[in-house]
This record gives sequence, C-alpha cells and structure tokens, in this order.
Amino acid sequence: MDIAQNVKNEIIQKGAEIIHHKGYSAAGLNEILQRAGVPKGSFYYYFKSKEHFGLEVIDYFAGVIEGIFNKYLADDSAPPLLRLSNLLDFYGRLLAKQGYALGCPIGNLSLEMADTNERFRERLDSSIGRLVGLIEESIVAAQKEMSVSAEIDAAEAARFIFYGFEGALLHVKVLKSITPLQTFKECIFSYLTKQIPVKPKQKKTAIRGQ
Amino acid sequence: MDIAQNVKNEIIQKGAEIIHHKGYSAAGLNEILQRAGVPKGSFYYYFKSKEHFGLEVIDYFAGVIEGIFNKYLADDSAPPLLRLSNLLDFYGRLLAKQGYALGCPIGNLSLEMADTNERFRERLDSSIGRLVGLIEESIVAAQKEMSVSAEIDAAEAARFIFYGFEGALLHVKVLKSITPLQTFKECIFSYLTKQIPVKPKQKKTAIRGQ
Repeated sequence: MDIAQNVKNEIIQKGAEIIHHKGYSAAGLNEILQRAGVPKGSFYYYFKSKEHFGLEVIDYFAGVIEGIFNKYLADDSAPPLLRLSNLLDFYGRLLAKQGYALGCPIGNLSLEMADTNERFRERLDSSIGRLVGLIEESIVAAQKEMSVSAEIDAAEAARFIFYGFEGALLHVKVLKSITPLQTFKECIFSYLTKQIPVKPKQKKTAIRGQ
Repeated sequence: MDIAQNVKNEIIQKGAEIIHHKGYSAAGLNEILQRAGVPKGSFYYYFKSKEHFGLEVIDYFAGVIEGIFNKYLADDSAPPLLRLSNLLDFYGRLLAKQGYALGCPIGNLSLEMADTNERFRERLDSSIGRLVGLIEESIVAAQKEMSVSAEIDAAEAARFIFYGFEGALLHVKVLKSITPLQTFKECIFSYLTKQIPVKPKQKKTAIRGQ
C-alpha cells in the first residue's frame, strides 16, 4: 500500500473515532487532521469533500462491524444460536468498557444524517442490509439444525433482530446500564425458540424497580 | 392561564417542532423565538437557560406521546392486543404523512444528548419509563383475558417492545419506508402470542427484494 493510501486510512480511522464520539456535523476537519497528524489544509488532497470522507467513514464503520459479526456468527465451532448469543455478549462487554456511551455508529449516523443527506442514507441502508444478511444466514443455519422453527421467515426475523438490537443499544445509552441489551437478548431468544423464559422472582423485581 | 404562561407554552411548542427537525444543539434560540413570535432577547425572561428550556421540551414531547399511547392503549372498546396493534398502525400513518422523516423525538434526543447531559438523560429515562409502563399495562390486560401467556414477564416484554419500536422507527428513517415498522409489528405479535405468522410467498419475496 502506498503512503498516500496509508495517510488516507489514518484520517478515516481518526475521523471515525471523533464522529463516533460527537457525530458527523460536529466533527471538524481540522480536529480530524490534527488527530491523524496530517498537516492542516491537506484534507482536499485526500478527499473531494467532507461528504466523500463521510461516506468512506460509513464504509469503515460497516467494515469493522461486519468483522465483528463475522467473527462470531461464522464461528463453526459453536451451534448457530450460541453464535448469536456470543455476539450479543461481546457487545455487552464492549458497551460496559465504553461506559455505556457512544452506541452504534451506524445507528447514530442514521438518526443524524438519514433525513438530510440522501447519499449517506443509501450508504447506511446498504451497510445495514449486509449486517442483516449475516444474521439471516445464522437463522437459516439454526433452522437447518432445527433449533429455530422452519416456519419463521429468516429474512424478516433478521431485520427484527437488527432493529431491536439498535433500539436496545439506544436505551443502553439512556439507562447507562446493560439491562436493555439483556432484556433484548432474553426476549429475542424466546421469540426465536418459542420458549418463554421463566425467571427467578428476585431478578424480576430488581429489573422492575429501576 | 396567564399570558406569560401562554407565551412560554408557545415557545416550548415551536421549539419542540424545530428540535424535532434538526436536533437540540442545532436549534438556535433566535430561530425559536422568531417562530413563536416573541421578541428577540426575551428568552431568559421565560427560561433560566437553554438547558431548562430543553428539559421542558422533553416533558412536552413525553406528554404528547403519552397522550397518543393513552388514546390507543386505554381504549376499552378494543381488546388489549388490538389496542397495541392500533397504536402501531397510527404511527405507520403518522410516519407516512411525515415522509418517513423526523422519527421519535425521544429516541432522537436520547441519541443526541444522553451521553453529554446528565439532566437530559434522567428526564429521558423517566419519560421512557412512563411509556413502557403504559405498554406493560396493556400486556397485563392481555394476560388477564388470556391472549398473552401469563408466563411472559409483562415488564420485560414492555421494555422489549419499546426498544424494538424505537429501533424500527430509526430504520423507517433509513429505508424511507414503513416496512421496518410492519416487520416489527408482525414479529412482536408472534413473540407475544407465540404463533408463527405464515405469510404468502409473494409478500415474502417482495420484502426480501428490497
């Protein structure tokens, strides 16, 4: 890889960090270049516009998340439903490490930008489509080994899971607690397996009392 | 109600409209006062700070949404599950009217402000708690008439529904289509009633082809 590409990647990566913390609109080009250690004013050597940069940041975020999804969901050593469970547990640990802040960069950018920038909206839509596709493959695999009913529409269930996951991440930010993700996980597994989890009374009361 | 209170309410209402469109940080005080027809510079006569104003806007949003939730979920003329279904259908019509833009003001403010302002976070948290409580009451009512299994934890299911609803609204913005809300509705009813909806092949293909 040539040096220019390395510098460009560094700008994207540091820019992504800043955008994850404060959003796209609030992320200033000078701050991004400074964080990347690139001379002020050289931004337009690497990117046609802030919008082009933003689109590459979406691709970067989507790539990172796809990597995480693939690591867990394509792990053949575990049965398909356990892979999904492991993925959600990984996010639980990640969110705890981040102090329950930040949330999902794709969800954040969707709320911030989907109404105002059509190119961003399209790029977010296709990124989400790929992530939903990975979940769908897991559900199909679970259906093949009979741990999820074959009557469930895997594509629809995958979208339902992704939307619920994004909603749970949003509420992790508000509650500053992992509870929304735990609630989501328990209910989604109940939905997928059609078994109602009966929980000990004590835990129920504790969650209710929040 | 005295005139000062009327003017204050007008500022809150017009401010809420602007914040729903562009977010809290981007909403300028002068723009809000102009929209409300109130002289420039008189903001601090009505509010101690922009933050105090923002907290009252959250209460305003929460009040409007509680009104909508109550209208549908407390409608004794319909069985409890149909009330929930009617509520989701109402939101489907509202989102279509809004061109699938804007989304839920409480969800938007959660993503924008929960990390940066603790008072906002607390106010959003308690607003969400009240809305979740209204859904919980519907589920308890549905359990009493045996349309939802008594083994489901109503409080947990209510949170699951609210998180999934917020996630679906987020994706309505990205897809610019009502499909995420429809998917959410079908899957949530499958979860609540433990019946797998078998859909006609044609519809499945259409949704998959998005």
